[in-house]
Amino acid sequence: MRDAIIRDVELADEGDDRIEWARRHMPVLGLIKERFEREKPLEGVRIAACLHVTVETANLIRTLKAGGAEIALAGSNPLSTQDEVAAALARDGIWVYAFRGNEKEYYECLEAALEIKPDVVLDDGADTIARIHEHHPDLIGSVRGACEETTTGVIRLRALERSGKLGFPVIAVNDAETKMMFDNRYGTGQSTLHGIMNATNLLFAGRKVVVVGFGWCGRGVAMRAKGLGASVIVVEVNPRKALEAAMEGYQVMSMREAAKIGEIFITVTGDKSVIRGEHIQLMQDQAVLANSGHFNVEIAIEDLEALATSKKRIKDGVDEYLMPDGRRIYLLGEGRLINLAAAYGHPPDVMDMSFSNQALAVEYILKAEGLERKVHRVPLEIDERVAELKLKAMGIEIEELTEEQKEYLSSWELGT
Amino acid sequence: MRDAIIRDVELADEGDDRIEWARRHMPVLGLIKERFEREKPLEGVRIAACLHVTVETANLIRTLKAGGAEIALAGSNPLSTQDEVAAALARDGIWVYAFRGNEKEYYECLEAALEIKPDVVLDDGADTIARIHEHHPDLIGSVRGACEETTTGVIRLRALERSGKLGFPVIAVNDAETKMMFDNRYGTGQSTLHGIMNATNLLFAGRKVVVVGFGWCGRGVAMRAKGLGASVIVVEVNPRKALEAAMEGYQVMSMREAAKIGEIFITVTGDKSVIRGEHIQLMQDQAVLANSGHFNVEIAIEDLEALATSKKRIKDGVDEYLMPDGRRIYLLGEGRLINLAAAYGHPPDVMDMSFSNQALAVEYILKAEGLERKVHRVPLEIDERVAELKLKAMGIEIEELTEEQKEYLSSWELGT
Amino acid sequence: MRDAIIRDVELADEGDDRIEWARRHMPVLGLIKERFEREKPLEGVRIAACLHVTVETANLIRTLKAGGAEIALAGSNPLSTQDEVAAALARDGIWVYAFRGNEKEYYECLEAALEIKPDVVLDDGADTIARIHEHHPDLIGSVRGACEETTTGVIRLRALERSGKLGFPVIAVNDAETKMMFDNRYGTGQSTLHGIMNATNLLFAGRKVVVVGFGWCGRGVAMRAKGLGASVIVVEVNPRKALEAAMEGYQVMSMREAAKIGEIFITVTGDKSVIRGEHIQLMQDQAVLANSGHFNVEIAIEDLEALATSKKRIKDGVDEYLMPDGRRIYLLGEGRLINLAAAYGHPPDVMDMSFSNQALAVEYILKAEGLERKVHRVPLEIDERVAELKLKAMGIEIEELTEEQKEYLSSWELGT
Amino acid sequence: MRDAIIRDVELADEGDDRIEWARRHMPVLGLIKERFEREKPLEGVRIAACLHVTVETANLIRTLKAGGAEIALAGSNPLSTQDEVAAALARDGIWVYAFRGNEKEYYECLEAALEIKPDVVLDDGADTIARIHEHHPDLIGSVRGACEETTTGVIRLRALERSGKLGFPVIAVNDAETKMMFDNRYGTGQSTLHGIMNATNLLFAGRKVVVVGFGWCGRGVAMRAKGLGASVIVVEVNPRKALEAAMEGYQVMSMREAAKIGEIFITVTGDKSVIRGEHIQLMQDQAVLANSGHFNVEIAIEDLEALATSKKRIKDGVDEYLMPDGRRIYLLGEGRLINLAAAYGHPPDVMDMSFSNQALAVEYILKAEGLERKVHRVPLEIDERVAELKLKAMGIEIEELTEEQKEYLSSWELGT
Repeated sequence: MRDAIIRDVELADEGDDRIEWARRHMPVLGLIKERFEREKPLEGVRIAACLHVTVETANLIRTLKAGGAEIALAGSNPLSTQDEVAAALARDGIWVYAFRGNEKEYYECLEAALEIKPDVVLDDGADTIARIHEHHPDLIGSVRGACEETTTGVIRLRALERSGKLGFPVIAVNDAETKMMFDNRYGTGQSTLHGIMNATNLLFAGRKVVVVGFGWCGRGVAMRAKGLGASVIVVEVNPRKALEAAMEGYQVMSMREAAKIGEIFITVTGDKSVIRGEHIQLMQDQAVLANSGHFNVEIAIEDLEALATSKKRIKDGVDEYLMPDGRRIYLLGEGRLINLAAAYGHPPDVMDMSFSNQALAVEYILKAEGLERKVHRVPLEIDERVAELKLKAMGIEIEELTEEQKEYLSSWELGT
Repeated sequence: MRDAIIRDVELADEGDDRIEWARRHMPVLGLIKERFEREKPLEGVRIAACLHVTVETANLIRTLKAGGAEIALAGSNPLSTQDEVAAALARDGIWVYAFRGNEKEYYECLEAALEIKPDVVLDDGADTIARIHEHHPDLIGSVRGACEETTTGVIRLRALERSGKLGFPVIAVNDAETKMMFDNRYGTGQSTLHGIMNATNLLFAGRKVVVVGFGWCGRGVAMRAKGLGASVIVVEVNPRKALEAAMEGYQVMSMREAAKIGEIFITVTGDKSVIRGEHIQLMQDQAVLANSGHFNVEIAIEDLEALATSKKRIKDGVDEYLMPDGRRIYLLGEGRLINLAAAYGHPPDVMDMSFSNQALAVEYILKAEGLERKVHRVPLEIDERVAELKLKAMGIEIEELTEEQKEYLSSWELGT
Repeated sequence: MRDAIIRDVELADEGDDRIEWARRHMPVLGLIKERFEREKPLEGVRIAACLHVTVETANLIRTLKAGGAEIALAGSNPLSTQDEVAAALARDGIWVYAFRGNEKEYYECLEAALEIKPDVVLDDGADTIARIHEHHPDLIGSVRGACEETTTGVIRLRALERSGKLGFPVIAVNDAETKMMFDNRYGTGQSTLHGIMNATNLLFAGRKVVVVGFGWCGRGVAMRAKGLGASVIVVEVNPRKALEAAMEGYQVMSMREAAKIGEIFITVTGDKSVIRGEHIQLMQDQAVLANSGHFNVEIAIEDLEALATSKKRIKDGVDEYLMPDGRRIYLLGEGRLINLAAAYGHPPDVMDMSFSNQALAVEYILKAEGLERKVHRVPLEIDERVAELKLKAMGIEIEELTEEQKEYLSSWELGT
Repeated sequence: MRDAIIRDVELADEGDDRIEWARRHMPVLGLIKERFEREKPLEGVRIAACLHVTVETANLIRTLKAGGAEIALAGSNPLSTQDEVAAALARDGIWVYAFRGNEKEYYECLEAALEIKPDVVLDDGADTIARIHEHHPDLIGSVRGACEETTTGVIRLRALERSGKLGFPVIAVNDAETKMMFDNRYGTGQSTLHGIMNATNLLFAGRKVVVVGFGWCGRGVAMRAKGLGASVIVVEVNPRKALEAAMEGYQVMSMREAAKIGEIFITVTGDKSVIRGEHIQLMQDQAVLANSGHFNVEIAIEDLEALATSKKRIKDGVDEYLMPDGRRIYLLGEGRLINLAAAYGHPPDVMDMSFSNQALAVEYILKAEGLERKVHRVPLEIDERVAELKLKAMGIEIEELTEEQKEYLSSWELGT
């Protein structure tokens, strides 16, 4: 099937058109691509990338290729690959190992991508890096560094770092301010609700929406659900975040209490089984469950399967689980990232920032000498640079400090 | 005048009533006070505090006193002292050196407070700490540590640290999450607009409000101005913050552009002369200027004075500056913190968190051994504890991690 | 006392300054005043006005005077009179019968104002019109018409009209779009919260605020409470309005349920006893009760008095009622309009519109021939004119229909 | 093609599943259907309906059929028909004359539906009623009444009424509060943005979105664009509405000014050519144009065609017009209702209310005697009933007036 997809010329043409549309809304990445074309900073570098195969990713891949890299690309989720994009990239000469619905072949694709023997790894969820450490210790030595795109992945990699086994430096691209506070918040916020609208067409106005997790993604989802008129309930384990949610005017409660009154549940925790059997049993008839965290483990689907007397796909992306007491619980997108399963993932405008950080982080890995085998933050210069270029592209002029102000800010003597 | 105030029994009674009202909305500080009364962790400790003398501060002072401390209190701003509070605290046996309008006697009051020869300094704006370093090097040796309450003060103290001259450890209470993200945002946000309403009674709906500075205070002010229906414009020097402001839907522009269209200007930068002559000359007739940053330097009042042909106090807290071309520019509260000059400062509910951090930070300074002469963050345990107690006081139950979830979050092997 | 007030020169000067400040933010009324000065459309007309004696009202009164009218002014609420304004108007030659706190002398003042034998009555709450019908049937014949400013008053007057006893035409100024949708919504919204901040200094962020009544005033109060970060609960009797509140994302419930969880209660119904004994008994300790409806009947104060074991004024505008079980319930501003009892009433910018409707409605009454003895809407031309002038004063240019568009909108033939 | 569609069994099965999903979110219509099944109030009545053929419409049609009606259904827009729904209804025995993309056959379908010789007409945009009056005067006599669903249609029908030619009574279902204030506002608001997301996947956060028209639909679109983080600009011709938009915090300006700075333009006016050549020439590169008004006349597509040097469909629902100066202007969904062209139309929850009004209005037409040949409002009892049933279905309990309160509200004597 994969081969059929990536050789489909019509599909590739369609992919090209859609990639081009996104390109026009990724001006910062465009500037980086122009420079990469001139300077070729990635000449001869082999990159294994495991990313959602979307139009935005395609523009990152083309940017890296413009810089001289050779790239193998696997999808980072079985439901997120856009086949027309895969086809277009394959025609470009990228080694593409991804097609929509590759549940069974997921790890096979990852393995194929690793055959490139990467100098640099781009990861989204840390599956590739974990796989290298578990199954390909021989590859570790030649990897000069990796980039990780998600909160979930960074959590895993910090655990790997603590275990003392991390074999090469990793840049936590996710933690760049121009990534985390934008992509995770505004991107996940809009695209998650977009996915749920596509799957259900339900009205948010007046609906009780439960957002599980109040990190940057959760803040974004809650903010947008409120912006669409929902009555939002937040479930969180961290007291400082829970308090912030309360002060923002959301109702804050435990999962058990929220389970009883919610109508739509959205998980964005990076954790597993945050909605499980004990909660499902308390839910109202017609409750809708969606996940926007990286892995399909946040909703305990196995509990849903165990509790239900029958299961029916009532429309694309919507599975109905019938409970013994007659209640129907709906699972969207098989519990996978709903913004990719039922919509197009993050908008290009915001991925422009995330992927500019990625491209510059790859360049940084190659230029930096002696980076420690740790999880590193994106250098502040890169973060600032991305922000400056983005503002410029948006036509926004910001204020500048005068010399007198700079001096004031660096002195301690002046007061009242 | 000061003596008259602090011996006025009727004033002290009124102060007590108002302090009591605030106390009931500061439950976390109340719990700490109860423990301090039992444990007396501050027995014999001399504290010099330079804080806004409000009902909330009074509850902090009483908490520290309950812990056994002897306290001298000066006001941290000439216009922020509530005389009835000063009177009540003086009757309690606190050494109070503050009265409303002590512009000339400001440093005199500070000096008086330092006569206590403090073990611990509580500062708000870093004036006291700066004064000790500049004028009382003899006191440095006996100070075991200090706490700083504001963003402005922390900026100054980091400059002092960089200069290599910081003589004792300082806890940046301001930077605690349960302080900065709540007091600075929700407290400053609401109280700043409250102050402007009191001074002007102008309608925010439909008004062009320019917020200068988009740190936590600026975010709060912008959010609340928007919440009251204003059309908000943000001016900022930091590209990442400017970008965030734009993504929040605010108009973002340079001070020169904003000067031309704004109707109400609010400065919250921690910097000086952010609104100055060149901007004032571009402003519309009837523009209103207010400051909510710590010092009265953010609006260049000297420029306003120089440009104006006359000045008139048209009502309490509102000075009209007449320009040669007939435009009238209004300065609120003499450019001092408008939330304290024209309202009551931050609400007690949010000061509950800030001052609980303060009280626990004082205890921490006394218990910690060998704290370096640096600017320290509030220990995470204190931050978390404050959040937990606040949630409990609000009757909010949060979610808890299961054992399985904890394990998942600390492992790196599990993925797709 | 009254005489002392209105002859106090210093007070009158202060009043003049404050009236002048408001005048500058009432540009539409200013334009009408200019025309009235030239045209004198109210020459020789006697007006009895019963209005809140605020700086905005002063500008209306001066506009009417500029048009040639002779005016007697009584306050429409015992706690809403600003004495300095009363003094300033008295010095102008207005017959002023109002001073702050005239609980006992309220009707006496009204009676005094009626001695002018009015041609036109301006009313706010319909007390004056009701009084004429009940006690001064002799005056009815000479009244050419009246204007009513409030929702509450219009409800009463429609009841009077239905009873067949209405003796002269009344213009329901309240129902003008440029009054009701602005003054009631944005004016009441902001000023009510302003009053509560002044009385309590409590933080709205994260607080459970119960808004009782979801008419235009209630919509405004709920919107602003949400804008300040509160978690808003709406109580309403009308199903269409209740549904709208739910769709706006508010929690909607009965008063009994809301009573159990609310922290601040705000009544804006135009009805009586919407919060009464049965609800007070369910409330939490420290619940705060405020009213922003016209009369002090919305909260059943008599029930509060009956239930409480003691009552104490803990600060200006805040009475504490101690319940037998130890709970303390706080009543703000004696249950009177909190925006006038603890703040300055509606901002001048929005009263500009309401009072421009008033001034033009007075002119309309005098010009119109044979107006029926009914409650009339403000003529659409006046409503539109006020909107146009306001937009112009705000510097806002709106779009205009082309000839082709006008034709399209008036045809029925053109479709798909 | 049509025949192929409506005989496609697989398509009909898919349609049934999707109609069933919507049915579960239309509880009020469900209750009406149950009663209709028992009472058969529409027995033998022939209905010609011209509506968007969506899952929600299918539930209305099935409700009418349950009441005993015989129904012919045409689509009210060439791009809004969902073929699987058409197939499912055809299998039910409805005379369906609609398929997606029937630009050329649009009037042909309408004609076919009229062959049923209707007793009652359900219209959406007034094309059917206009057609009857223009081309089938013979049918007028037997039509007992009609219902109109849209603002656009009601504008046309009032013009027809004013012309004196309206041949039968029409119920303006659009103007029911439970229709207009919900469907037009919350339904259009959400679904319009949903359509634009589907067509473009652009980020709304920080984008300049121009909403042309500030009726209920425009209010909804503006509110939701703001809720998604956009910086919203409103263009309006009516001064009262323009003023409301300004007070809501939107920027308000003329179309010419908005044209220069907007990034996404959304028309919702019910008028023609609100965006035309003179505006297109001022727009920035990459401006996006979308319409959510009933007809595809709001954007002057002919001007776009005339100005462009070339046109290219870059993806489904997005046409790129290249201007001589290199700017590219994007038109979404061929200028047709974007919420139906690129999404699924209004959510079922809100159509539940609109179509419950429709079903009850049909019953009312049949029961009412001697309805005048005018445009009538939906009787208040129907409006209230729909609201009550909806609240009940949402599990919301509202407050009830006490006897004492009812009396108070109907008296005029009681005041201060």
